[in-house]
Amino acid sequence: MAKINRLSGFPELLPTGRVIEQYILDTARQVFELHGYLSLETRAVEPIDMMTRNGEIDKEIYVLRRLHAATEEADPGLGLHFDLTVPFARYVLEYAAALEFPLRRYQIQKVWRGERPQEGRFREFTQADIDVVAKDSLAFHHEVEMAVVMASLLASLPIPRAIIQVNNRKLAEGFYLGVGATDTQGVLRAIDKIDKIGPERVRVLLETEAGLTPEAAAKCLALAAISAPDATFVDQVAALGVRNDLLDQGLSELAVVVTGANAERPGSVVADLKVARGLDYYTGTVYETQLVGFESVGSISSGGRYDDLASDGKQSYPGVGISLGVSRLVAILIGKNLVSASRAVPSAVLVAVADNASRPESEKVARQLRARGIPCEVAPTADKFGKQIRFADRRGIPYVWFPATAVDSADEDTVKDIRSGDQVGADAASWQPPVADMKPRVFATTDKSIVSKESL
Amino acid sequence: MAKINRLSGFPELLPTGRVIEQYILDTARQVFELHGYLSLETRAVEPIDMMTRNGEIDKEIYVLRRLHAATEEADPGLGLHFDLTVPFARYVLEYAAALEFPLRRYQIQKVWRGERPQEGRFREFTQADIDVVAKDSLAFHHEVEMAVVMASLLASLPIPRAIIQVNNRKLAEGFYLGVGATDTQGVLRAIDKIDKIGPERVRVLLETEAGLTPEAAAKCLALAAISAPDATFVDQVAALGVRNDLLDQGLSELAVVVTGANAERPGSVVADLKVARGLDYYTGTVYETQLVGFESVGSISSGGRYDDLASDGKQSYPGVGISLGVSRLVAILIGKNLVSASRAVPSAVLVAVADNASRPESEKVARQLRARGIPCEVAPTADKFGKQIRFADRRGIPYVWFPATAVDSADEDTVKDIRSGDQVGADAASWQPPVADMKPRVFATTDKSIVSKESL
Repeated sequence: MAKINRLSGFPELLPTGRVIEQYILDTARQVFELHGYLSLETRAVEPIDMMTRNGEIDKEIYVLRRLHAATEEADPGLGLHFDLTVPFARYVLEYAAALEFPLRRYQIQKVWRGERPQEGRFREFTQADIDVVAKDSLAFHHEVEMAVVMASLLASLPIPRAIIQVNNRKLAEGFYLGVGATDTQGVLRAIDKIDKIGPERVRVLLETEAGLTPEAAAKCLALAAISAPDATFVDQVAALGVRNDLLDQGLSELAVVVTGANAERPGSVVADLKVARGLDYYTGTVYETQLVGFESVGSISSGGRYDDLASDGKQSYPGVGISLGVSRLVAILIGKNLVSASRAVPSAVLVAVADNASRPESEKVARQLRARGIPCEVAPTADKFGKQIRFADRRGIPYVWFPATAVDSADEDTVKDIRSGDQVGADAASWQPPVADMKPRVFATTDKSIVSKESL
Repeated sequence: MAKINRLSGFPELLPTGRVIEQYILDTARQVFELHGYLSLETRAVEPIDMMTRNGEIDKEIYVLRRLHAATEEADPGLGLHFDLTVPFARYVLEYAAALEFPLRRYQIQKVWRGERPQEGRFREFTQADIDVVAKDSLAFHHEVEMAVVMASLLASLPIPRAIIQVNNRKLAEGFYLGVGATDTQGVLRAIDKIDKIGPERVRVLLETEAGLTPEAAAKCLALAAISAPDATFVDQVAALGVRNDLLDQGLSELAVVVTGANAERPGSVVADLKVARGLDYYTGTVYETQLVGFESVGSISSGGRYDDLASDGKQSYPGVGISLGVSRLVAILIGKNLVSASRAVPSAVLVAVADNASRPESEKVARQLRARGIPCEVAPTADKFGKQIRFADRRGIPYVWFPATAVDSADEDTVKDIRSGDQVGADAASWQPPVADMKPRVFATTDKSIVSKESL
């Protein structure tokens, strides 16, 4: 195994980075479970024809074949999933008879896309999704709930401020119909490019490709320029003078999401009428999320309502969901040194070993500590104690334990806090480190004085 | 999305099954961290040439290509990893400069093999591995440690008795050399087939393919027939009259592993001299594990010592590891109905909703409960209370909360234990369910009277 290939787009973390990622995953799980979401996983592969049925994302799929598949073997047509929503919709249809609806689930898994790697965009990455799906009809209040749960999670993490930007497909489509558009999908696709190519080039697309009049294109651009931290966007839209029933419904829904979510989590949500979301299965509220100061990296949490994704023609399961882009968030936090961990190893204690003959004594101490939930490890070699202390120090292990038999003339065990140098007598059957030392701590690097977020 | 394809070899769990799997994963993580193992993940893909360099497993690899890759694009030669040991060895070499050795890590991830699916054998499955790797040389006591940590984990799970069967490559290779074998790998490959094809057909292989004399073949079969729960196997091997220094070293090591592990976890380990392990990178102790009563499914936990896997020619990182086959174990537990979960959802409480106007009251109760760590959900629709109680009952949610405003003439909230029917006054700011109800419980189905294993 001589040659090592770093693979662009397939990020790997060092141990400290993994502590930070694990903290985010643990916090997500805790917040999701507090809100009643059950855990599910789906297989990593899906039939390609199923994945390409929705959206324009098919070019990014990784296709599988067995290395030594016989050439005459029928191609199974399997690819790695590119998100967790499409597989979950398939799961719901496949196992509907055994599930209770409405079904609230979270799903934390890796997904793969064969895109060109760039900042915040990977070929393999982890997502943490929540969705609620119902049978036949899904109550609107779940569209508020998605923003509230994700805002709760984001507020629980030691990260910069995050703002969830919300829009509504009915609002957009109703408005486009109201200005006379016939290809509303084409208008949406053009509007989706505002951040990339700017409004003037979008105006050209709207007139040439989506077939809008100059007046209609101007109104669509004016709509996309509206954003507000509250329901005042309703009057701004009304001022554009476009009338349509679907637009009115969308305005009303969006107002409820923004005011409802901000009532519970003040300042967490804004209405932003340029948010489009590329995937075409959304039918109601859509969500994106900016990390303040790091907007260029793109949305760290996105989702929306979908009415027709999980449907077998007879029975439909409308749903709404939102996804945290864990790998993208972790890449920002580590890449910009925004978050730190107190240590990379779980061990709170290193049990020293005086000589090979007394290793069983040290193992016994470790067993006693573990029986009371204290993570620890026994020194791998009976080096000089100074070297064993440095072993602990390099790993951030705060305590070194010296069994009595290890030290000449000592008649009791001692434990040393290697940060302060304090060394005191201790009994492995009762000694307890402070709660803050039991697990690695994860905290905002920029605010070292206040270690506000304890590891779970 | 009309057509659903069940995919053989890609198992998926229903919510209750996932609770059981998650309990096993949580317990594994807890035991591993108590023993000082840090968490790592590696990317799901590796260069195919790297994966095929060791062992004979190349035919099982899934190769990736991008669906719309240009034909002239150089084939990247990437495949999905088939285990976690080879990728970890690559990770160690790649990031050695940033790692502290000896490095103790656990890794819980999915792996993929394109094998024909059969009982306990999947194309996608989850493994939970621990390994210790050192720089230059690895202390032998870690070979005892692997068995102890895995035995601790297995003893922490509500599963049938598991027995770790241990052998030693030095013992086997020394013995084969001692009887005059020149192709010791060939002898090992033949011995590895005893359980599949029986000793008589292995005898033929040993004589024809591995080139042993009838006497030598008989001795190798006699060696493979030896097993013992303690060091008495040493005398049994000695009685075969084969002398070799490597054999002696292997006997001595195996005796230490068996007696050392059983001293800490009585009855957890046996010496079984037919255990070979197919992969050829092992150089010392090898482990397999039988679940008593379910031996035909195959080993649920395997591993071994490897000295040359992580080596770049100049620097080597010898290691030892053991892996729990989580998917195989879960398939047995669920398939044979050995383990049950008290509920599929995390919610301990369903907060009832009297009518749409009072939904905010119910949401407020839920917020108060969550603030104190009690998982709960609010009823999705303001149905009649009987229907809301049945909603909770179908999900196994033990408590239904009725806000005061929801009930005519009530002046305080009440909470109903729907198992007993008891309904009492309660304050959302202070009410606490019993600890046993806070999370889904996971327990052995065969012993319902003793719910001995609480969910973490």
